[in-house]
Parts: sequence; structure tokens; C-alpha cells
Amino acid sequence: MSHSNHFELLATDGSARTGKLTTPHGVVRTPAFMPCGTGGAMKGVHWREVRDAGTDIVLGNTYHLMLRPGAERIAALGGLQSFTGWNGPMLTDSGGFQVMSLSELRKVGEHAVTFRSHIDGAMVELSPERSIEVQRLLGSDIAMQMDECVRLPAERGDIERAMQLSLRWAERSKRAFETAPAGHMLFGIAQGGDVPELRRASARGLVEIGFDGYAIGGLAVGEPQSVMLAMIEEVAPIFSQGRPRYLMGVGTPDDLLEAVARGVDMFDCVMPTRNGRHGMAFTRFGQINLRNARHADDPRPLDEESFWPSARSYSRAYLHHLVRSGETLGAMLLSEINIAYYQRLMHDIRQAIAQGTFASFCENTRAKWARGDIAPR
Amino acid sequence: MSHSNHFELLATDGSARTGKLTTPHGVVRTPAFMPCGTGGAMKGVHWREVRDAGTDIVLGNTYHLMLRPGAERIAALGGLQSFTGWNGPMLTDSGGFQVMSLSELRKVGEHAVTFRSHIDGAMVELSPERSIEVQRLLGSDIAMQMDECVRLPAERGDIERAMQLSLRWAERSKRAFETAPAGHMLFGIAQGGDVPELRRASARGLVEIGFDGYAIGGLAVGEPQSVMLAMIEEVAPIFSQGRPRYLMGVGTPDDLLEAVARGVDMFDCVMPTRNGRHGMAFTRFGQINLRNARHADDPRPLDEESFWPSARSYSRAYLHHLVRSGETLGAMLLSEINIAYYQRLMHDIRQAIAQGTFASFCENTRAKWARGDIAPR
Repeated sequence: MSHSNHFELLATDGSARTGKLTTPHGVVRTPAFMPCGTGGAMKGVHWREVRDAGTDIVLGNTYHLMLRPGAERIAALGGLQSFTGWNGPMLTDSGGFQVMSLSELRKVGEHAVTFRSHIDGAMVELSPERSIEVQRLLGSDIAMQMDECVRLPAERGDIERAMQLSLRWAERSKRAFETAPAGHMLFGIAQGGDVPELRRASARGLVEIGFDGYAIGGLAVGEPQSVMLAMIEEVAPIFSQGRPRYLMGVGTPDDLLEAVARGVDMFDCVMPTRNGRHGMAFTRFGQINLRNARHADDPRPLDEESFWPSARSYSRAYLHHLVRSGETLGAMLLSEINIAYYQRLMHDIRQAIAQGTFASFCENTRAKWARGDIAPR
Repeated sequence: MSHSNHFELLATDGSARTGKLTTPHGVVRTPAFMPCGTGGAMKGVHWREVRDAGTDIVLGNTYHLMLRPGAERIAALGGLQSFTGWNGPMLTDSGGFQVMSLSELRKVGEHAVTFRSHIDGAMVELSPERSIEVQRLLGSDIAMQMDECVRLPAERGDIERAMQLSLRWAERSKRAFETAPAGHMLFGIAQGGDVPELRRASARGLVEIGFDGYAIGGLAVGEPQSVMLAMIEEVAPIFSQGRPRYLMGVGTPDDLLEAVARGVDMFDCVMPTRNGRHGMAFTRFGQINLRNARHADDPRPLDEESFWPSARSYSRAYLHHLVRSGETLGAMLLSEINIAYYQRLMHDIRQAIAQGTFASFCENTRAKWARGDIAPR
């Protein structure tokens, strides 16, 4: 792992930070939101729309890609950026989280996790070293250490055992990553559930090992937002100030504001695309359910002031019709509209931090969400 | 119905013709292929891609749209072009065909067809007059008369009864269309199954009534291609030479060549999008099944000479992966690639007719299809 720092802080506003992270495939402006290109594709969205929406970096799922089409195959085809045509910065998770959530018959050991593939039933072993190897084969710009994530609520003993195992895996991951080409990065992941002292111990352990960036894992797994924010407050001051901080699997637009205010630089979440497939649109008026009959005869667009063409040009009546009819185009339009909303929010967050107006920006944004959607007609 | 002719023949080559049809929403270059925007959307394809692929006109299904979201609702929202955002020429079918194929408990009477909606189970009556009213509410540029289509093979008596009923419905449709705004067109539909003399009688009856264009219905319903082509040869010489001819629900690229050679000007078919959703791509090498394992490691694009970016830029390996993984993006890419292939074929057909080289164009095109796909590597 390179000891040079690819992250440059440009401005701070309270604990909120804005900066840029230079990867082999381009620059990522932070705070950054990474849409999830799970199995090598963004569900229902063309790559050019992902890019046009203002996305700098996307996430790929190691678990899905190693099982299908296979890491060695993607490597032979020139890596994930070339394979998918995304051709920009890409972060890959370690695969550990999906092993826990998607596979059957998983067994966690000191050396590795063994699990049954949800695709073809084959038994697969994933160790920290193999996870790094897979991520290097995929050619990701940012690799994540393998960790064990415990679903909350959980016993303190279980949380501590998983946190300690994750720290040992962090060390092994770093060693396995030592020969990675220059410019590629490895992030460590803090665990510790909802126990402040375990979170702090985890963060300190990671900093001792030394990573290109630090992630907070094991949150947004069912706990209240206040617990999530408290855990961020525990670890953020411990993480090296000059390295990027990544809150994994988060979240709602409000989660993003709260976490940025506490010094988080990066996020990923399936929410924009998943909610889009379920007829939900994110707008400056809050979340809108297009399935609702109030939209059936409404010729007005979702948001006439949106920068995103589909949010301005299609009527609510049309979107309602598409969602109700189960037309693929409905999921396609709402997914791109939601990614665009998230990316514009990140853009505005970066701008507000640079201008030192982040607090009032959050206040105004929340006031609009609270006012809710335009009145029916 | 206006007596002015909106169709201009520009060139002929044997029986093949090229021309232009002027509609209230724009000009249609013929021979024209109409992709199917069944329920107000092209499955898996954005409207801008439909347009960019070279599409002049799309088809909307009256049956689907009258049931959901409803013709009166679409009219209140400014018509189908404005509702969908397609904003170009649109032809609507009469709804009769889908009543036969999709609804339960249908009953055909002299006055109308009564059927149970496949969406909410409501009993609905569709008469030739109501069909015209619905199509006018939708605001389509070209309306189709309601007809009765008999699935082949069928008894001659049944075919004749349906053909005669369709002729009486043609007269009623024309009367109902008399007050339509200038520029909007109504096409009659020849029936008569696979019986030459019934086909001729149907065509003569329609010409006597007088329409803006003439369609051939009740084909591509299971009969061999040779029967379909023979029926076209029966009716094409009877139809007014200066009016457009439309072969409904057809077909494969080869069907298009054969029918154009017999004087057909317009087509519609779900094949480009439906086959795309099933992992099939139309190319100059013929039809390619992306599900096939031979593509799994192939870095080459579908067709490096295609005018359509997705057919040149994505590898076969990636398309194979998307199809095998059931990723929406696979269906999206193959559907747009197929529409683009069809539209480029129509473009080349028009050019060949204009240059008087249609016969050799067909020969070359078929030779490439026959040669098949590039060799595996």
C-alpha cells in the first residue's frame, strides 16, 4: 500500500469537510455519494445517466461479481471499469457483508468465511487475502478490508468478538494489499456495533495499522439514526484527519446531512435505485410516492426546478401511469431521477461547506422536506 | 375524413416503393417500421433512444390505453404524444386484436365486442364507433378501423364471416371518423385469412369505401411466410396505388424485405423489444443469442460497424453477463440495439429503392445473415 495520501482537504465548516480524492480512474469530489452497481450494472440506469447525474464514483459488489461472472474473467477482460463501460472511479466492498446477508450455510472461522453460493449452490471460501485478490482482479480503485458485521441489536460479547476478528482481518488485508499498484487504495473498516468503547478501540486499532481511508461499518442495520450518529461521533475524531471517511450503506438524504456534519466524506446506498423501482421519487419536497392516486391526473412535473430533465419534463400523471402499469420505463425514470437528486444534494453540500454556510444549508433543505409536496390539484 | 392525400411516393423499384407520409406530428419516411409503445411506453427504452435510433412513428395500443390510464384521462392531459413525451407521429390500433388475444369472456356481436378487462375484470364494450372515439381522444395521427381477426388455420366459413363483419365495421368506422380534424388519417384493414378470393373481396370492399391508407390484418398469426406473402400479392394491386399500405404485426427482418418487395410501406412489431428482453440481438450477422456461453469471455462488441453506440461499445462478454444475471440493463441495451437495427434496415431499404438497387440490396443483406455470426474466439 502506498504511503502517499491521495486525499486533499479543500475546506471545512465545523466538522464538515469538502475535498478531493484522486484515484487511478479519476478524481472524486467529497462528500461523495456512490450509487450501487451491484453486479456490474446500475439497476435500470444507463451508465451515461449515472455520469450525467453528477456521479464521480460507483460501488461494485465483490460477492456478486466473484460468483458471476467471476473475478478472473473480469480481469482477463481488462477489469471492472472496462468490462462495464463505466470507466470511472470504482470502490469495491470486501464481499463479507453479502456473505452474511445473501448466502446460506455460512461459517465464520478465524481464517475465512465459507458459504454456499446463492447462484449455483457451490461452496466458496472467502478469506481476507482472497477478498483483496478478488478486488485487485476486479481492478477497483478503492478496496475494502474484509470484516464481520453483526446485525443489531446484539450481545456485547458477540459485537466485541466480531470487532476483534475484523481488526485481525484488517492487518491481514493490509499485508495482502502491499503489492498493489501505485494509486490504488485500501480502506479499513471500524466495527463495534452500538458500543462506544468498542467503536473507539476499533478505530484506534485501524489507525495503528494505517489505511488510505477509514470506513464505519455495521451501521444502518436496524438501529435508530441517533445511535448511528453517536457512533460516528465516537470514531471520527480518532481517524486520521487527512484521510477520507466512509459511512457504509447509508442512507436517506437526512442521514447524509447529519453524517457530513460529523465529518463523513463518502457514502453508498441502494436507496435511490431501490426506492425508484418501488415508485418513490426523492425531491426537494421530500419523498413522493408516485403510486398514489393523487397524481393520476396531474400534468405537473415532479419538480419544475430540478436540473434533471426527466424530473422536469414528464408529468406526474405519466409517471403514476408507468408505475401502476409496471412499465420498466417507470423504474428507469425514477431511478435516474433519484440518483440525480442525491448527486445534486452532494453538489450543494460541497458548495455550502466551501462557502462556510453548511449549517444554514441543512436548515433550509430540511425546512423544504418538512413542508412536503406541492398541494394536489 | 379528409379527401386530401398525405402520402407522397418518391420512388419505386419494381413493386417496392419509398415515400413520405405527412402527419399532424411530423413526417414519416416509408417504408417505415413502427416500434410498439404498447401501454404508453416502449418496454425498457427511453423515448430519446427510440427517436435517435431513427424512428419516425410509433404504435400505441388502444386496448391497453383505454383500460389504463383511460382515453378520457389521456385526452384531458393533452393526448398521447404529450402524455408520453414521445411528441412524434403515432398510429393506434383499434383495440380489436387485443380484445381477442388478451381478454376473457369476449363476445363478438354485430354491434360491438363485449369483453372482461384483463386488468380489473370490468365488462367493457368496444364498438367500431367507440374505437374511433377512443383513438380520437388519444390524439393519434393514424387511426385504424376495428376489425375481427381470425387465428389461422380456420374454416373458410369463419374467415368469410369475420371478413364481411370487418367490412361493415369499416363503413361504420369511416362514418365515425368523418368529423376528425384535418390531417388525421384513418386506415381500413383487409381480412380474409389465407383465402385469396376473400382477401381480394375484402380489399375491393375497402377501396370502395375509401381510406387514407390500407392495412393487411390477420397475418403473422401462425401461417407460413409463403402464405403471408401470397396474400400481400393478392391485395396490393387492388389497393389505391397512391395510398400507404401497412402490414400489421410483421415481422422478422426477412419478412420486411419480402413485404417491401411486394409494395408494403409500413410495419409494426414487438419483435425488437420482446426478443431483446429474451437476450436476442439483431445484427447484420443475423440474430445472436447473448445467453450462449460462447460469448462469456468475448471482448468484442456485437457489431463494430454498427451506427448504434451500444452495439459498438459494450463487449459481448458484458451483454452475456447482464442477460445471464437478469440485469434490467441487459434488456434495455438489447432492446435499443434491436430497434436501432430495424430502423437502420429501413433506412437502407429506403435508400436502395431510391437508387434503384433494392434487389441487390436484399441479396447482399440476406447473404450476410446467411453467413451468420463472427467465429468464436
